[in-house]
Amino acid sequence: MKKKSKKVNAAILIIGNEILSGRTQDKNVGFIANWLNIKCGISVNEVRIIPDIEKTIVCNILDMSKKFNYVFTTGGIGPTHDDITALSISKAFNVKYEYHKEAFNILESYYGKKKFNDGRKKMAKMPRGSKLIYNPSSVAPGFIIKNVFSLPGVPSILFSMIENCKKYLIKGNKVHSKTLNLYTVESNISKQMGIIQKKNIKYVDIGSYPFFRLGNVGVSVVTRSTSLTKLKKVHLELLKMIKIKKIKILKI
Amino acid sequence: MKKKSKKVNAAILIIGNEILSGRTQDKNVGFIANWLNIKCGISVNEVRIIPDIEKTIVCNILDMSKKFNYVFTTGGIGPTHDDITALSISKAFNVKYEYHKEAFNILESYYGKKKFNDGRKKMAKMPRGSKLIYNPSSVAPGFIIKNVFSLPGVPSILFSMIENCKKYLIKGNKVHSKTLNLYTVESNISKQMGIIQKKNIKYVDIGSYPFFRLGNVGVSVVTRSTSLTKLKKVHLELLKMIKIKKIKILKI
Repeated sequence: MKKKSKKVNAAILIIGNEILSGRTQDKNVGFIANWLNIKCGISVNEVRIIPDIEKTIVCNILDMSKKFNYVFTTGGIGPTHDDITALSISKAFNVKYEYHKEAFNILESYYGKKKFNDGRKKMAKMPRGSKLIYNPSSVAPGFIIKNVFSLPGVPSILFSMIENCKKYLIKGNKVHSKTLNLYTVESNISKQMGIIQKKNIKYVDIGSYPFFRLGNVGVSVVTRSTSLTKLKKVHLELLKMIKIKKIKILKI
Repeated sequence: MKKKSKKVNAAILIIGNEILSGRTQDKNVGFIANWLNIKCGISVNEVRIIPDIEKTIVCNILDMSKKFNYVFTTGGIGPTHDDITALSISKAFNVKYEYHKEAFNILESYYGKKKFNDGRKKMAKMPRGSKLIYNPSSVAPGFIIKNVFSLPGVPSILFSMIENCKKYLIKGNKVHSKTLNLYTVESNISKQMGIIQKKNIKYVDIGSYPFFRLGNVGVSVVTRSTSLTKLKKVHLELLKMIKIKKIKILKI
């Protein structure tokens, strides 16, 4: 972590036809968002899922890298014809797409010279000027160019690499959160909750999410804030409202 | 289904801080994408996940409703202060945000006049000119305005409503797909697969996805095409390559 700043944000760009077709259930958004939030105090402000089309990747990289402090891409950095993330990011930033020496050496020494075929060599090709994100599970590294972090699409591999991104990130203020799981329906508390939200709009974000669990209908009321003091104040206001309305709190 | 057309596409806009924070794992993208693909021949070309911020919703609705044949939104149509999807879509299309008579009647007769409070009434407010998407599970309807379909965020409720969208959609050509699960690594087949893809780039899309299952490392090669004949041709080419390389096919 480099230095403290107040609000740091990121976006996630999932590159892959398999997610868009519904064939594969994405697991990376939740994982990266949680990790950024909890470990780095960075909030994810947008996610996009796009197909393996060069022009689409280029446009989204340019757009998102301007709008957000960081962009995390997943997918498209393997050895096959549909792995075009590194090439597309090179084009977006108008830099050469070439072998990264260290990545080439890492891969060559892992596979051995004889088994280091063209497909595997492709995984060493990156935008010129990239820094590596080391991969403790399957060796082929990800890369960082400008504010874009490129990670693989396979969740288990991505999960093993994420900690190696940390040292390149500026840490934001930690977002604290509290959850109240209530035996009620949203419309029973919507008015009062709206008033409490309005009063505290500047510092605290209140979200309300209905749930159905083990035959129970309920609402999770989630408060989030970078200020623990203000969070606690709103939490007390909510508890007061819950007491007046005689709503049972579910312990889970 | 109205009439036949060749390529029909859609985008999905997930509205909700709870997905962006990593608190809730999204289940709607995969479900909607599968349903559109298989039941309607409509391919999802982009997904965005955005926070409950009016300006952000307005911008994305305007952008996506221009770029794609259909836009499916999920989330933000409940009774609480953070449910601002209907209001934001009204602003995007510059139409009044007002009570939809039929929706109001449906909700009032469900809750009864006494229990029909302001929160519940809010669920009857929509962009002027909306058509209803009926809700067989929790009554509160979704709505359609122009090419935008607004559905709730709770997966079980959304799943129960999706069939009611069908009659408003123009059907596209069905996309056929075949999957080969192979006991190999991507780099072993990347070159030949790339050649086969290049030869058939116009009609068939070949995707390659590594997997780890029950201790096995493998690759799923997925071919997709609207032409069954061309799909079969490419499938045979892949089988020939697999035979030459003596790769075992996994039956799952």
